[in-house]
Amino acid sequence: MPECPHSVSKIDRNVLGREQERQRSRKPRELAAVARLRPTHSPQPRRPQHGRAGGSAPEAAPGSSMLRQLRSVLPAAALRDPPLPCAFSRPSPMGATAYDVGSSTNIKWHEGGVERASKHRLLGQRGVVLWFTGLSGSGKSTVACTLEHALREGGRFTALLDGDNVRHGLNSNLGFSPQDREENIRRIGEVAKLFSENGVITLVSFISPYRRDRDAVRARLPPGDFVEVFMKVPIELCEERDPKGLYKKARAGQIKGFTGIDAPYEEPPSPELTIQARDGAGAHVPPQAMAQQILTFLHEKGYLTAGSS
Amino acid sequence: MPECPHSVSKIDRNVLGREQERQRSRKPRELAAVARLRPTHSPQPRRPQHGRAGGSAPEAAPGSSMLRQLRSVLPAAALRDPPLPCAFSRPSPMGATAYDVGSSTNIKWHEGGVERASKHRLLGQRGVVLWFTGLSGSGKSTVACTLEHALREGGRFTALLDGDNVRHGLNSNLGFSPQDREENIRRIGEVAKLFSENGVITLVSFISPYRRDRDAVRARLPPGDFVEVFMKVPIELCEERDPKGLYKKARAGQIKGFTGIDAPYEEPPSPELTIQARDGAGAHVPPQAMAQQILTFLHEKGYLTAGSS
Repeated sequence: MPECPHSVSKIDRNVLGREQERQRSRKPRELAAVARLRPTHSPQPRRPQHGRAGGSAPEAAPGSSMLRQLRSVLPAAALRDPPLPCAFSRPSPMGATAYDVGSSTNIKWHEGGVERASKHRLLGQRGVVLWFTGLSGSGKSTVACTLEHALREGGRFTALLDGDNVRHGLNSNLGFSPQDREENIRRIGEVAKLFSENGVITLVSFISPYRRDRDAVRARLPPGDFVEVFMKVPIELCEERDPKGLYKKARAGQIKGFTGIDAPYEEPPSPELTIQARDGAGAHVPPQAMAQQILTFLHEKGYLTAGSS
Repeated sequence: MPECPHSVSKIDRNVLGREQERQRSRKPRELAAVARLRPTHSPQPRRPQHGRAGGSAPEAAPGSSMLRQLRSVLPAAALRDPPLPCAFSRPSPMGATAYDVGSSTNIKWHEGGVERASKHRLLGQRGVVLWFTGLSGSGKSTVACTLEHALREGGRFTALLDGDNVRHGLNSNLGFSPQDREENIRRIGEVAKLFSENGVITLVSFISPYRRDRDAVRARLPPGDFVEVFMKVPIELCEERDPKGLYKKARAGQIKGFTGIDAPYEEPPSPELTIQARDGAGAHVPPQAMAQQILTFLHEKGYLTAGSS
């Protein structure tokens, strides 16, 4: 890739370094002028109380107008957050606390985004991609939707990526050529990666028939972040269901390249989870029980706690 | 776009409808077989208590092994969630409660994902895209990072999209031709849309010099979901900062097509927020004060509460 003259990736994060130094040596009149820009502020910057022992949410320092505003609109927010070291008492990378940096605001200067572990603590979970793969009619989306609701009932934060919100948006400029199908899965994988990196339990529901494409997504993610959920439903059952008559059309040759008919579905050789349509007694397994299997996996593997990372 | 024989958008959501009917008429032996699939379950399906008056988090019905599991690993989860009508007491679309649907699990059948409003209630905020636009060196990413940390301190859930996590992932197959630049912004807009649709406060930091490209993103989002944050910093100041010497190279003709030098930057005619480098007294405004301006906007416009939608 050529060097991008417009790339802002690491540029803007440093550009204000000189400004910060200027701020720290500014005169009182200038500080007052800056303060006028803010709708509410303490007349005098005040030092925060120092790090509290755990047990409750971190307290804002006295005079924290920003946090007061937030608290006033969301009383529950204070309860939501597990105890963390108080950021306001930590020295900034420049050796000064937030209170020394040129203004009375309690907002701290940052040159990098909020870390993943911090988002995990906020959400009380670990980011992960649950990649549902299987034939058309195998129940991928039904199980994904059922699972998403179950996680929501348990207070977990999720995102669901499927044809509804991807094919008509991000991938609306892709067709169904082999290259476009590959690019379709690649982009979905990259978006799922962005969600999981932010701590979201991300449910992805696409046939994704090719092992290579799925493995390419897996390879882009850190170990443990990609959970392949194989909907192992015999094609006979999928075809019997055939809710939109697509199998019928494919058998009649009206649709070409239909997965399982005249295009391959490559089963995952070692998926993290295999969901079967029938239990040992031959009875159909309902989607609720399938969702339960996945939920148990998530619980046992620690995805439903923030963990120590 | 041609009809996709593999599209799963609306197919899988209905395929198990017949299964559901089968479940409801199944024999006890079959039910027992299904129950064996689950690691923990109540021996007898039990009816839930009916809707509670608000005041505390929704209670699981007796015998809710799934929710018991979740609670055991996250005691705070019960406190996190604002009072909601108890889903377990509502009849399902099929006219039966979750307890009637073929098993003792409390997981409910769903054919659509969790709604946006529900995610808003979970997160205590409204999804929005904060689109930072401005010249290289205008402080977009510094302010975005500073704001992201401030929101995190207030218990808000955010995502930050910038060159670091987009150009090397989703958009790694794009160059810098006019078409590729347009596609770059389009994809970023679509990803930001997916995040905001899930209730995330989404900070996007790219020069995005062309009005048409930014407006195209705005047009894809519902009213109020796109907040254009214009970093109105004079090019002289950006060039004076020039932390990576890019302006110098552009002036020397070593970089072609550099925004502000030999490529245009089209200012937004009516951005939701304009962030200026200097205050009325001519003093430099630090990034913290810039972040405070945006935070105040978010508060005043109601983005920091779940709202009624």
